[in-house]
Amino acid sequence: MARIVQKYGGTSVGSPERILNVARRIKKYRDQGNEMIVVVSAMGGETDRLLSLASQLNESPDEREIDMLLATGEQQSVALMAMALHGLGCPAISMTGAQAGIETDGVHSRARIRNITPHRIEDSLADQKVVIVAGFQGRTEEDAITTLGRGGSDLTAVALAAVLKADLCQIFTDVEGVFTADPRIVPEARKIDVISTDEMLEMASLGAKVMQSRSIEFAKKFGVVLEVRSSLTDTPGTIITEESDDMEDVVVRGVSADKNEAKLTVRHIPDTPGQAAKLFQMLAEASVNVDMIIQNVSEHQLADISCTVPQAELKKIQTQLETRIREATGAEDILYDENIAKVSVVGVGMRSHSGVAASTFKALADHGINIEMISTSEIKISCVLPLERADDAVRILHQTFKLGETTRET
Amino acid sequence: MARIVQKYGGTSVGSPERILNVARRIKKYRDQGNEMIVVVSAMGGETDRLLSLASQLNESPDEREIDMLLATGEQQSVALMAMALHGLGCPAISMTGAQAGIETDGVHSRARIRNITPHRIEDSLADQKVVIVAGFQGRTEEDAITTLGRGGSDLTAVALAAVLKADLCQIFTDVEGVFTADPRIVPEARKIDVISTDEMLEMASLGAKVMQSRSIEFAKKFGVVLEVRSSLTDTPGTIITEESDDMEDVVVRGVSADKNEAKLTVRHIPDTPGQAAKLFQMLAEASVNVDMIIQNVSEHQLADISCTVPQAELKKIQTQLETRIREATGAEDILYDENIAKVSVVGVGMRSHSGVAASTFKALADHGINIEMISTSEIKISCVLPLERADDAVRILHQTFKLGETTRET
Repeated sequence: MARIVQKYGGTSVGSPERILNVARRIKKYRDQGNEMIVVVSAMGGETDRLLSLASQLNESPDEREIDMLLATGEQQSVALMAMALHGLGCPAISMTGAQAGIETDGVHSRARIRNITPHRIEDSLADQKVVIVAGFQGRTEEDAITTLGRGGSDLTAVALAAVLKADLCQIFTDVEGVFTADPRIVPEARKIDVISTDEMLEMASLGAKVMQSRSIEFAKKFGVVLEVRSSLTDTPGTIITEESDDMEDVVVRGVSADKNEAKLTVRHIPDTPGQAAKLFQMLAEASVNVDMIIQNVSEHQLADISCTVPQAELKKIQTQLETRIREATGAEDILYDENIAKVSVVGVGMRSHSGVAASTFKALADHGINIEMISTSEIKISCVLPLERADDAVRILHQTFKLGETTRET
Repeated sequence: MARIVQKYGGTSVGSPERILNVARRIKKYRDQGNEMIVVVSAMGGETDRLLSLASQLNESPDEREIDMLLATGEQQSVALMAMALHGLGCPAISMTGAQAGIETDGVHSRARIRNITPHRIEDSLADQKVVIVAGFQGRTEEDAITTLGRGGSDLTAVALAAVLKADLCQIFTDVEGVFTADPRIVPEARKIDVISTDEMLEMASLGAKVMQSRSIEFAKKFGVVLEVRSSLTDTPGTIITEESDDMEDVVVRGVSADKNEAKLTVRHIPDTPGQAAKLFQMLAEASVNVDMIIQNVSEHQLADISCTVPQAELKKIQTQLETRIREATGAEDILYDENIAKVSVVGVGMRSHSGVAASTFKALADHGINIEMISTSEIKISCVLPLERADDAVRILHQTFKLGETTRET
């Protein structure tokens, strides 16, 4: 017997038929003798419907009231899921985030979980019930309803798994797991059976959209074993867990591409101490997330600083910051390039295997792909290259590191 | 400055436009210096939508889960109403029943309010905010969500008015108030300006559908002054309040007809002690509400007992009880008559004015209307008569007691 937390997203519970399918799956796990805690999101479309109503009443609605409104979506889902389980003869009880004991801070629309007092969940599990918990929500000490922001239901599931000391936290989604590369780009990409949380964090931050970094970090911190798997099939998914020794046998776990960044080049800054600091200070004050940075000193003591930022921030920089940056740093001009992509190889095996960087650069060079920027960590190598060669680069690296070969893992 | 509780039903908040209209009305009251507490129902149609989803998952869903599901309707309304008020520049805060401090017993789908701890409401009023409370719902001591059953939002409003010592509790609805008779039957029927809670209770139990008896009883018990009025106009409605001396100046306040009862006649029961008791014991055990009762002793020591019951209960009696009743009482047969109506005249003035009964019977007799059963209380006379003469009877009695004459009240 295991204690399992499962999480189902909005698509998985998007209609009465789908809710019934999920209920049948939950019952199967319970009939095998497992203790089941199930976190569900709002039915697909419900959140958008509610936001549309809100926008007809107020152009910028108060976040406390938005939380009050949106939390109803998950509350409906848990009640419906409990009814579906009852209909299958499976004892179950629904709980709001508040009833489940999830206490958060008071930052509406992106609250942080502060504490979970799971005695009601434990009592219901002891009563042999499946416990259905509304994802994405909690309550403050003052009994206000809060929501946890994007990826909030995953976070509810991981946090409950941590506090309930669950054996496994299964995230059911519309993909079969984490792949060695995006299968739409690399047809021979394989589903990864086991990945370390560190590798998964790099994959998530590099554009693999399976889970938000926040929930993976939480799982890492509290030693929660995650499984990402499909709610449409019975195929095992990808286990995300603490690093084990044998994981280093695999040099590269996966290749990913992030096409949502843009490159900014601030040209001809007088090369005196503190100029770079001024630039990044201003970007930080405007809440622009800077990713990679390089600096070249060119002729006449003038420096060029390039960095990558989210494409979505580019307009803000152009309209609100460009003049101020030039005045503050003495730069000649600022160039923008949206036609870039960041392609990365990730694997904890890099720590013990040298030559991965060399192989990466050589493979790209052999195919005439120009690398504009490079950044590395212990377990990742990222290259910024022209957008139109991004898919090629992913395919080339996937092949270089033999990620499509099934003999690699057992 | 007054402290006012207002309640708006599902039709009044059935669309974003209507929510905005209601918000403008609330703001107007607040701008006049009043402290405002507003109770709202779920948007019209939302409850049915949710019940339809539930019925697709489970034929007889658990009542705890139904409460969990339905309570979201009011929660959405309060959040949207608060947003609408914010958009008009009016400070406001929404609260679920639980947040408003409404504690109930644990009888799901028809819970009773046990206690209200309104400190959060008082704090928000002190902060100059309009407080928007979700109607129809509360929470148990164990933090389960409950609903109050039919007319529950009215009850929330009246209970809050009682505990907050409000000067007035306004029930906004789609009628202009309480009328001397149904205007669809009696075109000259007039809106009643002031009516006593006792009269209103009789009117409600006699089929005037403006408010449920339960809320009126609550208002009577705690001395809450009610006003029933239209959310579509600015016309004053009907004040429902404690009886005052001058109310007795009016002999008859109104005339109503109840067409939802049926007559049951148990014929030829041996006239020995205890036979009637057996009959009503069996009806009570089957939860059949018996209204009027008459008994005749006919020839040969055989008695006939007639009573009126809700039409909706008739089938249950015919299929489940008829044989048992005949065996237990020794009755010869049971006759059923659905073609009846109960027409009543109501007024606290009857206590001090004699002759109302006589005038009633004479007026009906003069028009050839046969009275089958009669029941009276201190402030009401009810006659059961043939269904096809019910509207005639209402018109005749309305005229007999000159209820259409505007000089009657000031």
